[in-house]
Amino acid sequence: MTSTRTERDSMGTVEVAEDRYWGAQTQRSLGNFDIGRDTFVWGAPMIRALGILKKSAALANAELGQLPQDVADLVVRAADEVIAGRLDDHFPLVVFQTGSGTQSNMNANEVVSNRAIELAGGVMGSKEPVHPNDHVNRGQSSNDTFPTAMHIAVALELTERLYPHVEALRDELARKSEEFADVVKVGRTHLQDATPITLGQEIGGWVAQIDQALDAVRQSEDRVLELAIGGTAVGTGLNAHPEFGALAARKIADETGLGFVQAPNLFAALSAHDALVGVSAALRTLGGALMKVANDVRWLASGPRNGIGEITIPENEPGSSIMPGKVNPTQCEALTMVATRVFGNDATVAFAGSQGNFQLNVYKPVMAHAVLESIRLISDGCESFRLHCAVGIEPQRERIEANLEQNLMVVTALNRHIGYDKAAAIAKRAHKEGTTLREAAIASGDVSEGDFDRWVVPMDMTHPSA
Amino acid sequence: MTSTRTERDSMGTVEVAEDRYWGAQTQRSLGNFDIGRDTFVWGAPMIRALGILKKSAALANAELGQLPQDVADLVVRAADEVIAGRLDDHFPLVVFQTGSGTQSNMNANEVVSNRAIELAGGVMGSKEPVHPNDHVNRGQSSNDTFPTAMHIAVALELTERLYPHVEALRDELARKSEEFADVVKVGRTHLQDATPITLGQEIGGWVAQIDQALDAVRQSEDRVLELAIGGTAVGTGLNAHPEFGALAARKIADETGLGFVQAPNLFAALSAHDALVGVSAALRTLGGALMKVANDVRWLASGPRNGIGEITIPENEPGSSIMPGKVNPTQCEALTMVATRVFGNDATVAFAGSQGNFQLNVYKPVMAHAVLESIRLISDGCESFRLHCAVGIEPQRERIEANLEQNLMVVTALNRHIGYDKAAAIAKRAHKEGTTLREAAIASGDVSEGDFDRWVVPMDMTHPSA
Amino acid sequence: MTSTRTERDSMGTVEVAEDRYWGAQTQRSLGNFDIGRDTFVWGAPMIRALGILKKSAALANAELGQLPQDVADLVVRAADEVIAGRLDDHFPLVVFQTGSGTQSNMNANEVVSNRAIELAGGVMGSKEPVHPNDHVNRGQSSNDTFPTAMHIAVALELTERLYPHVEALRDELARKSEEFADVVKVGRTHLQDATPITLGQEIGGWVAQIDQALDAVRQSEDRVLELAIGGTAVGTGLNAHPEFGALAARKIADETGLGFVQAPNLFAALSAHDALVGVSAALRTLGGALMKVANDVRWLASGPRNGIGEITIPENEPGSSIMPGKVNPTQCEALTMVATRVFGNDATVAFAGSQGNFQLNVYKPVMAHAVLESIRLISDGCESFRLHCAVGIEPQRERIEANLEQNLMVVTALNRHIGYDKAAAIAKRAHKEGTTLREAAIASGDVSEGDFDRWVVPMDMTHPSA
Amino acid sequence: MTSTRTERDSMGTVEVAEDRYWGAQTQRSLGNFDIGRDTFVWGAPMIRALGILKKSAALANAELGQLPQDVADLVVRAADEVIAGRLDDHFPLVVFQTGSGTQSNMNANEVVSNRAIELAGGVMGSKEPVHPNDHVNRGQSSNDTFPTAMHIAVALELTERLYPHVEALRDELARKSEEFADVVKVGRTHLQDATPITLGQEIGGWVAQIDQALDAVRQSEDRVLELAIGGTAVGTGLNAHPEFGALAARKIADETGLGFVQAPNLFAALSAHDALVGVSAALRTLGGALMKVANDVRWLASGPRNGIGEITIPENEPGSSIMPGKVNPTQCEALTMVATRVFGNDATVAFAGSQGNFQLNVYKPVMAHAVLESIRLISDGCESFRLHCAVGIEPQRERIEANLEQNLMVVTALNRHIGYDKAAAIAKRAHKEGTTLREAAIASGDVSEGDFDRWVVPMDMTHPSA
Repeated sequence: MTSTRTERDSMGTVEVAEDRYWGAQTQRSLGNFDIGRDTFVWGAPMIRALGILKKSAALANAELGQLPQDVADLVVRAADEVIAGRLDDHFPLVVFQTGSGTQSNMNANEVVSNRAIELAGGVMGSKEPVHPNDHVNRGQSSNDTFPTAMHIAVALELTERLYPHVEALRDELARKSEEFADVVKVGRTHLQDATPITLGQEIGGWVAQIDQALDAVRQSEDRVLELAIGGTAVGTGLNAHPEFGALAARKIADETGLGFVQAPNLFAALSAHDALVGVSAALRTLGGALMKVANDVRWLASGPRNGIGEITIPENEPGSSIMPGKVNPTQCEALTMVATRVFGNDATVAFAGSQGNFQLNVYKPVMAHAVLESIRLISDGCESFRLHCAVGIEPQRERIEANLEQNLMVVTALNRHIGYDKAAAIAKRAHKEGTTLREAAIASGDVSEGDFDRWVVPMDMTHPSA
Repeated sequence: MTSTRTERDSMGTVEVAEDRYWGAQTQRSLGNFDIGRDTFVWGAPMIRALGILKKSAALANAELGQLPQDVADLVVRAADEVIAGRLDDHFPLVVFQTGSGTQSNMNANEVVSNRAIELAGGVMGSKEPVHPNDHVNRGQSSNDTFPTAMHIAVALELTERLYPHVEALRDELARKSEEFADVVKVGRTHLQDATPITLGQEIGGWVAQIDQALDAVRQSEDRVLELAIGGTAVGTGLNAHPEFGALAARKIADETGLGFVQAPNLFAALSAHDALVGVSAALRTLGGALMKVANDVRWLASGPRNGIGEITIPENEPGSSIMPGKVNPTQCEALTMVATRVFGNDATVAFAGSQGNFQLNVYKPVMAHAVLESIRLISDGCESFRLHCAVGIEPQRERIEANLEQNLMVVTALNRHIGYDKAAAIAKRAHKEGTTLREAAIASGDVSEGDFDRWVVPMDMTHPSA
Repeated sequence: MTSTRTERDSMGTVEVAEDRYWGAQTQRSLGNFDIGRDTFVWGAPMIRALGILKKSAALANAELGQLPQDVADLVVRAADEVIAGRLDDHFPLVVFQTGSGTQSNMNANEVVSNRAIELAGGVMGSKEPVHPNDHVNRGQSSNDTFPTAMHIAVALELTERLYPHVEALRDELARKSEEFADVVKVGRTHLQDATPITLGQEIGGWVAQIDQALDAVRQSEDRVLELAIGGTAVGTGLNAHPEFGALAARKIADETGLGFVQAPNLFAALSAHDALVGVSAALRTLGGALMKVANDVRWLASGPRNGIGEITIPENEPGSSIMPGKVNPTQCEALTMVATRVFGNDATVAFAGSQGNFQLNVYKPVMAHAVLESIRLISDGCESFRLHCAVGIEPQRERIEANLEQNLMVVTALNRHIGYDKAAAIAKRAHKEGTTLREAAIASGDVSEGDFDRWVVPMDMTHPSA
Repeated sequence: MTSTRTERDSMGTVEVAEDRYWGAQTQRSLGNFDIGRDTFVWGAPMIRALGILKKSAALANAELGQLPQDVADLVVRAADEVIAGRLDDHFPLVVFQTGSGTQSNMNANEVVSNRAIELAGGVMGSKEPVHPNDHVNRGQSSNDTFPTAMHIAVALELTERLYPHVEALRDELARKSEEFADVVKVGRTHLQDATPITLGQEIGGWVAQIDQALDAVRQSEDRVLELAIGGTAVGTGLNAHPEFGALAARKIADETGLGFVQAPNLFAALSAHDALVGVSAALRTLGGALMKVANDVRWLASGPRNGIGEITIPENEPGSSIMPGKVNPTQCEALTMVATRVFGNDATVAFAGSQGNFQLNVYKPVMAHAVLESIRLISDGCESFRLHCAVGIEPQRERIEANLEQNLMVVTALNRHIGYDKAAAIAKRAHKEGTTLREAAIASGDVSEGDFDRWVVPMDMTHPSA
């Protein structure tokens, strides 16, 4: 049997395992919220964010004379260990707890307090010399700290995880776009043959879509840099030094290198989390863009013989447990599954975001979790797709040329010379008679051989402005 | 200027155009709710349902001695006109009104009352001899009548509109499935060539999916047949005769020919509309199934030369304003757009359905509207798709055979004879060397010519149980 | 019987009613797409946008020497009538048509062409002197014009409808916030009594949330100002003058006064509509914000006797058909129903937006429709809510003061003086014994009367920084 | 460094850690799909289901003479260990892999094969005497086995986890409903005071809603009992004995005690997963119902002094890190957060379910995962809510009576005696003058004291039929 120590909160005493830093409230939450424990325990991003927050708050309080310097120093030392991930095992709580995240905020207060006490040579659980509420949580409430930590975690995950991975994919595709700038191929609209484009242009369209989606994510991040800190219980800032919120935000900015500031309206910052709704929506758009790209890739690679087959992608694993030799676009499948998950997470976030009442939205944990999950999945999904698929995209030049050869929609080039109606008649004739467009055009009497060869040049049709 | 008469409610008097049957509360709502007027005025299904309800309530009340027979007769005559659609112009209110639908219930009460008064030779607005509340709304509250009308409207629209149209499409596809039972073609999984199937089997899969989705819609209808009537204001049935609800439900069943009954728990019937959430979800599944079918159709018809091109579909209109001779799968596009709209409507319904408080859910109108819209769109979409696309689906036998010929995945038939690993080696060899599977198999030394021809018979591979 | 004239397209001839300007392709679409006709015929915003587009294209083409000046002049005159809404009856098509909007683009081409022909004294249907494809659609494809028109319509509706109506509500609330800056009341978190705020602060939180949501909508509009024009069929700009797209965008900017430009990547502009996905998401956030505000209003106004009852709102209509004298928060209900519809529209848009293939997304019409509907509903909903609810919000000062008096959470002010743990004990004692906090505090021995009265001043607690 | 052994598949050799049972394809997947590894590794339900499947398939194959009895016996022994959870550590793959679940199917094949080889004293990786494809996967493809395992996992989780936990909550509430059958209180519609109900009726409405939602889940389970097994690669059943699918389904039924059968159409069973879409939707409805219940509980318990406060719920933990003595409805918050997550999961499932192409839907893993997660969260959430909240719901009888006393809406009882209009005037008078309804009624002259006391009896109003 594990030996325990007695911890105490305003409701009384609770036994906690000796080797855990947490206190009474964390322990109560462990008993009261056994929901999805396998997969919904908070991960590193939120724990680290709580550590950053507690450290920054202590620094700000000390600077403002709200906390003795020696207490602040102890808090900072303990919080640094939280930030470094050394105390992750002491954060056992799940997402589905109180909707304000109070229990995770208290988990941070208790762990930092007890570890600080330990560093000071004190008795854990004694709350001396570092009290979880009066010192670690000084000038704070869960209602402002938890959303602050949510924003810190999301901004860091965007910056350190999402941007680099999505950009790496984007850059790889941009390279492919340049590399295949000369590959003229049939365009497709409505899944039907259309006028020519280059493979470079086609891939360039993907790059542009990802760029725009990423821009929107970055834009949405701006509001995430605004922190609720300083609002305390209801947004008025009761019990916090008037300059605490702004100063703590500055400390957080220093610690992270990101441009955090205090939110302009603290009542809105507690009672709504539209900044996260906005990020989630931008991630959804990015997910939709990746779905389009991955779908294009797998359709272009479809076949090998009875599909479109204009590109090949890496063969990473046997595709079928029954069909020998089959190879499938598995990275595309993983990435589009990620997209559907991101859409679902976004539905959760938007729904939860609409449900605030009065001075508090009590869906904070589920919102933070879903946004962080989407960031993680998109990041990992893009990296996987880049490494195991995008880098190996290669045009099947023979197939592309053969397709282009028989494409009737190059007829469009005739519009300007003989008008839409006559051009339509030629295309219909070729389609009906199974001939090439050139044959049908000349047979129509509306176009001479020389004109046809001058007017209908697929490569020219891809860069009409040249 | 239109001449007016004075109508009165518990808040005072209001002027109403002389030629309109509605009264004070309808007129107030007109002034107070100018939201989406172009497209959100209630259509025939809800108006008719309110008529059926008011007629049935009067019959039930009369039978239970709660309404003088002559008053009931007048109410029934006026309500019959509502049912027949002759008074649609007297229902001017929009969906976005009070969340209980009170104003549309009062609209019905007022129109029936005034029309009944007119039939009786009385003075409109006098509430004599037929009072909108005391007589037409006798034993009722908006809180039970409006959800009752919602259910009537939905059940009728399902029965009269959705089932016949979806079944007609299903039957057309079933005919095609039989017709093409002999067309052996390449199967496709992961968009990659797979073992053979028949076109009949492929289309039969669509039929089965539609059948199952339709079954689920029918199942969901069961709960819609349970009516809130008799619950009055909060579910207790205050002011209604104890037998009123059950009897009114029976009258509604008589009027419509559908198996309506009173809901078993009237508190739940007012405070939640999970029956509609269930129907909406079943419609969403049906929408998803139609999306799959329409996507398969347009991909199979893709081309004409550079796609899969294994079927053709009717050419209904010029496809492009710039590319002459282009024909597009426009009915597929309309149907898949319908599916996305149905998904959106369902999101509305589920969200709204979760937002009840205490004895009432006040999202009734938006829920009813979205479900009715989905029914209408799926019905119309299926009918359009059937008439202008499905009936004209034809296999492109040459293309199908050519594709089948070069399909490597028939290798799977060798598994049972030489094992997965050797079969895989053969398929990879053919793929790499660009040969037929037969050539590669024989070259491998693991299969003789005779064995190959006996083992690898595409048609046999489609009916292995035969 | 209506007399008809014969119209012709590349598929042959079609009879069209003499008094309609549309041509063969519109007529075919009418026959082929009978889906949701009651409510899904395009409304004024899209028709006007198509008019603006056709006019601007003609001006640009003329300036670039691509269209004879006299033809351009005729197109402009006809298009001006479309813009003015005088030809709305000649746009009979529904949303559920071809996914590129080709049929509505052709509807515009045909109406402008025939009206121009009429103005020139020609024979309608003759395509002389103004051809629908070769002249009105000059240098265009549905694939670039329809998304261009979508963007024009959305940007105009945002500018002319949404911003003014939402801002009017926001301003009204801002006025209320100032007006009630002195009303100190109980704050509420987790639906439980919390530390005091002022009613002005509470309403100010709503204002801030709306402001931020509106900012996000404006930000999302930026990308809508980028137009696909000039991309023609697949994004390459085939058949358009190289400067056409940029110039046409400038003409559209001139016509509308909005900062339209050509999109930087035309391949993405045809194959994805993430700009609309972004607007839709921003509208959803706004819808969620309005839901929060409307919910707060109705809860604060709940009662009249057994709810919270801290504010009153206008009594606009009798609330119940059975409960005499009941008044309900009907504007709140309408606005929250709007929010659920906006959420559903957004689900449609995001789903549709993810479904592009190759060079085209063929869910254009359903996306445009849903975004325009959301704009309309939010605009109308806010205006209705402002006029019939927000303007009449009044505090119930007696109730507010009585509530504040018995609020235990002012105990929080003691934390800084006696620590969290002792303060908690006092609050618990008051709660358990049913006394005031003051009584319990003094009884505890930890606080003197004088200290209590100096430390616990609700108004001070709302502006701790003062 | 870990020592390894060499495993081989059709693509070549791979090194695998000696102490892992998995083979080449699992190892490849580990390298190729590093997506969401922290939380998206398959949990026990899917692993167990794969074990059940492999065991049942071996039994069926042996019975049909498709597998030597000794090989089958080895497979069964190894699979039994998988079922028992003893080999969970040998299933390291994540959800985001190939969309057919091929890699997890192969993971099962490889683990069972190697463990069987070990049991037989053979050399792991030798595929002798038990080959992962030719024996363990005999007559199977991932395309039919993975969806079969999905259905097994979902049906078991519903049966063993969801039903008991949701029913336990339902039963607890039913007990409360009976217990409080005599507590007459104010009803509330539109958040406004309405006619009386009993607390028993109010809670009974929750019970009914849960019952109906649970019924719908059970109904949706019917289709989940239909298994894809026997369809193999594309639905034709190629390489499976004609009786294999039905027999394997029977073996699965025997193993689980659930009524599994082979699906009636195997093409649909591979290319669509509408059975899961249906379950997911039913779970969403249940989630919405739980949201309504939890919202009612927290609003009824709101206060303690400035809310509705008609019930109390257990105080499980300190509610605030800053407001001493605050207690919050945290279990309600956790449960409503669960609901938002279930809604999101459902959005994922429905989206993914619509994206099948041809003979396969390649979103299988993400669909299975989301449904299983929803089941888990609802189950855990209900259990937590029951244990830590529902069991402790107690009426605050004094508050309830005081509220009822001043409720004006009992005026409704007068309708039948004096008509709606006069009753309305009385209620308005009482409201305006701040009197009781009795005082206003008598003052009106329309009702005598005796009549009032006979007509207006709140308890009678809750059971009007009695």
